[in-house]
Amino acid sequence: MATALEITDVSAATCGTSLVREPLSTADAEQLAATLKALADPTRLRLLSIVAASEGQEACVCDLTEPSGVSQPTVSHHLKVLTDAGFLSRSKRGTWAYYRLEPAGLERVAQLVALP
Amino acid sequence: MATALEITDVSAATCGTSLVREPLSTADAEQLAATLKALADPTRLRLLSIVAASEGQEACVCDLTEPSGVSQPTVSHHLKVLTDAGFLSRSKRGTWAYYRLEPAGLERVAQLVALP
Repeated sequence: MATALEITDVSAATCGTSLVREPLSTADAEQLAATLKALADPTRLRLLSIVAASEGQEACVCDLTEPSGVSQPTVSHHLKVLTDAGFLSRSKRGTWAYYRLEPAGLERVAQLVALP
Repeated sequence: MATALEITDVSAATCGTSLVREPLSTADAEQLAATLKALADPTRLRLLSIVAASEGQEACVCDLTEPSGVSQPTVSHHLKVLTDAGFLSRSKRGTWAYYRLEPAGLERVAQLVALP
């Protein structure tokens, strides 16, 4: 319950925050830097783009190892970072985990960098 | 001359690159991760937002130390990272350096995260 409330608070604090409208508060800057750090890795950018370009913007973890060119544990680690940061959601069906693009994650970054 | 050509090449390779249209190439992912890393720091996000919210989207380095809450050498280091990544440009007038927002830097990130 406490965790759910924290997540809601963070999302409310940074939703629609723009870099160019007014100086960012320290709290917003910390939160947005953490979100951008999750994105600022070449393997994670490639994984996210592969999921986003897949049918239904969803992919099985079993189909991500080969095109990403890294080992399965490394893929799983990077997918967890992207999921924790709100760029992907995860669901399990049978043996495999499936990852789906969460457009709200990219939208938050788009709002941050949007010019007036 | 070699440097100028390199910069042109990198810019051409990543201009208009989108995460959600097709899987990113390894080269594009490396370049975009480096750009995002320059942005993914709370002090740099605050400095960039202060410059962007200033009159003419330009600020003297002498006016950035106090609102950013870090030392002048730290401010200078972060401004250099933002300038090298294409988010700011720098000009010297008299004693002081002035930093201006370069909208093309943020536009490149906006294109990366744009949804179809």
